[in-house]
Amino acid sequence: MTMQTIGIDPGTAIMGWGIVEEMGGTLRSVDYGALTTPAGSEPAQRLLLLYQGLTDLLHQRKPDAAAVEELFFSRNVTTALAVGQARGIVLLALALADIPVFEYKPREVKQAVAGYGGADKRQMQEMVRMTLGLPSIPRPDDAADALAIAICHSYTAPMLRRIAES
Amino acid sequence: MTMQTIGIDPGTAIMGWGIVEEMGGTLRSVDYGALTTPAGSEPAQRLLLLYQGLTDLLHQRKPDAAAVEELFFSRNVTTALAVGQARGIVLLALALADIPVFEYKPREVKQAVAGYGGADKRQMQEMVRMTLGLPSIPRPDDAADALAIAICHSYTAPMLRRIAES
Repeated sequence: MTMQTIGIDPGTAIMGWGIVEEMGGTLRSVDYGALTTPAGSEPAQRLLLLYQGLTDLLHQRKPDAAAVEELFFSRNVTTALAVGQARGIVLLALALADIPVFEYKPREVKQAVAGYGGADKRQMQEMVRMTLGLPSIPRPDDAADALAIAICHSYTAPMLRRIAES
Repeated sequence: MTMQTIGIDPGTAIMGWGIVEEMGGTLRSVDYGALTTPAGSEPAQRLLLLYQGLTDLLHQRKPDAAAVEELFFSRNVTTALAVGQARGIVLLALALADIPVFEYKPREVKQAVAGYGGADKRQMQEMVRMTLGLPSIPRPDDAADALAIAICHSYTAPMLRRIAES
């Protein structure tokens, strides 16, 4: 049994995504990339473009599950609002495509991918590359971040299933 | 020529809306209300319900324009994220329904409705009631807030048109 998870890193200018397939504990990268919107376009138009891009992607790829970071901001409220708007679109597109969503804290993602909740960005990117057997670090950074979240869920979901079945 | 404006006050638990018609400088309330979501439901499900409710409303009522507040939070980042998610859904539903969106600062709404940028909530509600000739203050508060935003745009849009035509 294989399971495909899409990880999504929401943003209004750029939205990273990465699909990871898990089979018997082994992970591979199916595909990854980033949706972008033209600089200077209206917020509503940007959200529309991201929504349409993500919806197309979900219909083409039909992942079994989606993983996103549980966001926590300590400071910048304006950023929180903007990322919140993009995140709302992501959650809506997933709900409309009937794909279950799992949320992980940044620390949980780091722990699952690098074995260490305090891993830095560069360590995380290198672990994503090694885990998925990729020749180089995925670009852009947003796609690497999205793959990390997908890896976190790909490792966690089989454990959750075993616990549920026991 | 009449113009119908829908004002929207986004929130994840409750989303206020109000439609105001302007004709020759006179305003009237077409309808108002609030979309609510069951307490305890998943964020993605709540966003989906709000999106579907708002989309239905837009298709039924076909307003000419939409007005929302330009949000500004000084403190609470968690609230900013949650409201951002709801606001993202609103902007998306409006873009998909091809309804132009106008944003106003809270102070501009107060200035337009009460003639005073520092008006308090109670004064605003009473001015909404009087402006629209309603027998009592619209309930819930979220609907009254949404009507205030719609009134702001209903007053502002004809002025903008005259400036554009001159």
